[in-house]
Amino acid sequence: MKKKIVLVGLGLIGGSLAKALRANTQHEVLGIDTDEDSLLDACACGAVDGKATKGDLKEADIVYLCVYPEAAVEFVRQYGKCLKPGCIVTDTCGVKGKICSELKREQENCEFYFVAGHPMAGKEFSGFPASDPSIFVGASYLIAPCGAPEWAVKEISELAAAMGFGRVVLTTPEQHDQVIAFTSQVPHVLACAYVMSPRCREHQGFSAGSYRDVSRVARINEVLWSRLFLDNRESLVKELDTLLENIGKIRDAVAGKDEQKLRELLRTAAEIKREVG
Amino acid sequence: MKKKIVLVGLGLIGGSLAKALRANTQHEVLGIDTDEDSLLDACACGAVDGKATKGDLKEADIVYLCVYPEAAVEFVRQYGKCLKPGCIVTDTCGVKGKICSELKREQENCEFYFVAGHPMAGKEFSGFPASDPSIFVGASYLIAPCGAPEWAVKEISELAAAMGFGRVVLTTPEQHDQVIAFTSQVPHVLACAYVMSPRCREHQGFSAGSYRDVSRVARINEVLWSRLFLDNRESLVKELDTLLENIGKIRDAVAGKDEQKLRELLRTAAEIKREVG
Repeated sequence: MKKKIVLVGLGLIGGSLAKALRANTQHEVLGIDTDEDSLLDACACGAVDGKATKGDLKEADIVYLCVYPEAAVEFVRQYGKCLKPGCIVTDTCGVKGKICSELKREQENCEFYFVAGHPMAGKEFSGFPASDPSIFVGASYLIAPCGAPEWAVKEISELAAAMGFGRVVLTTPEQHDQVIAFTSQVPHVLACAYVMSPRCREHQGFSAGSYRDVSRVARINEVLWSRLFLDNRESLVKELDTLLENIGKIRDAVAGKDEQKLRELLRTAAEIKREVG
Repeated sequence: MKKKIVLVGLGLIGGSLAKALRANTQHEVLGIDTDEDSLLDACACGAVDGKATKGDLKEADIVYLCVYPEAAVEFVRQYGKCLKPGCIVTDTCGVKGKICSELKREQENCEFYFVAGHPMAGKEFSGFPASDPSIFVGASYLIAPCGAPEWAVKEISELAAAMGFGRVVLTTPEQHDQVIAFTSQVPHVLACAYVMSPRCREHQGFSAGSYRDVSRVARINEVLWSRLFLDNRESLVKELDTLLENIGKIRDAVAGKDEQKLRELLRTAAEIKREVG
């Protein structure tokens, strides 16, 4: 059955989802964006079938919130009541604890179902011009059901599979935020801290793959990521403290010329990496 | 003019150099390895024209030392005197200060010229089976002339270009070691420290490009890298302290909910990355 899908926010993620939905499903895909240029671009290149009016919103079967966490909550606060009964609202925010509790609260006076989502894909550029559905191919799509009925979770999962995601992983907001602090947030902190070394300006000609890989995501959107870091403050600080401690151990073994200890630390790391991939 | 080139050590780097020289030059390429299997494999697949005998060594125009730093020095100590006048000895070690001073000393009683080299390429696997000349394509080849005559430096540079390296960068052992501590050694320390987090075992399904990129080189050869870290102890410890301080700044801004400071730090990092690449 052809459904009406509305994407709120047509940046890197919203734009990519729109393109993936248009290319891989028969549904009607409509967009909303406060930036008129992004909306015009998306319409012009066929990433969406058109702009979503308030009327479309009332008829929507699924709404993807692809904006900053606060804007997502604000959107639901403003339009949640006009969504039809059984409409599925899902988001794409990188931290789940806060948005899940806030949207659950909004849901109480409304008739939509909220399913939290996090497509584990991205790149170090932002905005609609950077959007590209191929970033989703083979990636994980994380879903925290947040009390939504099974059919709604199934629907979001099936759309993820249709868009090319490699697997859907069901999680809770708490587990999500703890693991994501490690897998995604720490590498972003690291990349930023790394390029702050005065030596960074001398790297050209002296660098290879490992410089490129560690520094890649330092090309960060500081407004978005500051918010994501603060929304996941406890888990992130805990992970950073673990990391600081482990870097410190290697540093001390080098400073103390303790070759045996150093080998032991590096061997442990190599074993973990070989085991967990 | 067809030259006789001897590669001492046919691991990842020596094997890759052999293959690149055979594929891109008309020179005679011979190999030596204490591991009989590597030598047989290299001969069998045509990576080298054959095994270098002691007679070949005496006639060699160029000798590439592609073994651990200590083994490289030991090799020159043992065979340096039998090399012909004007033979160029070059190495591929990742740290230059120590090997350059030791080989300069060996050179005093011999007639070869030593040109220090460091092909800035590699991968997270080792040994001859992992060797692959394509890792050099477009990479930097660092050369510290160490007092060798200009024609010798030119010869090593031209061979690097012939093998597909993108550029040759002339440096000094001191500059090399300071910059390499940042561009190569710190990312290896980071990768190892990163995967030591207990959360690492839960990453599957929750990770994307940034996890993969930061953790890649944790698949480390702990014997080689412990040696490289200790041979560059001062520069590495200095870089690690800078890194610890910068991670600490971001950590404190997150812990203290200082959004303005956090944005400022991330913006600075993004600006540096955009500027220096």
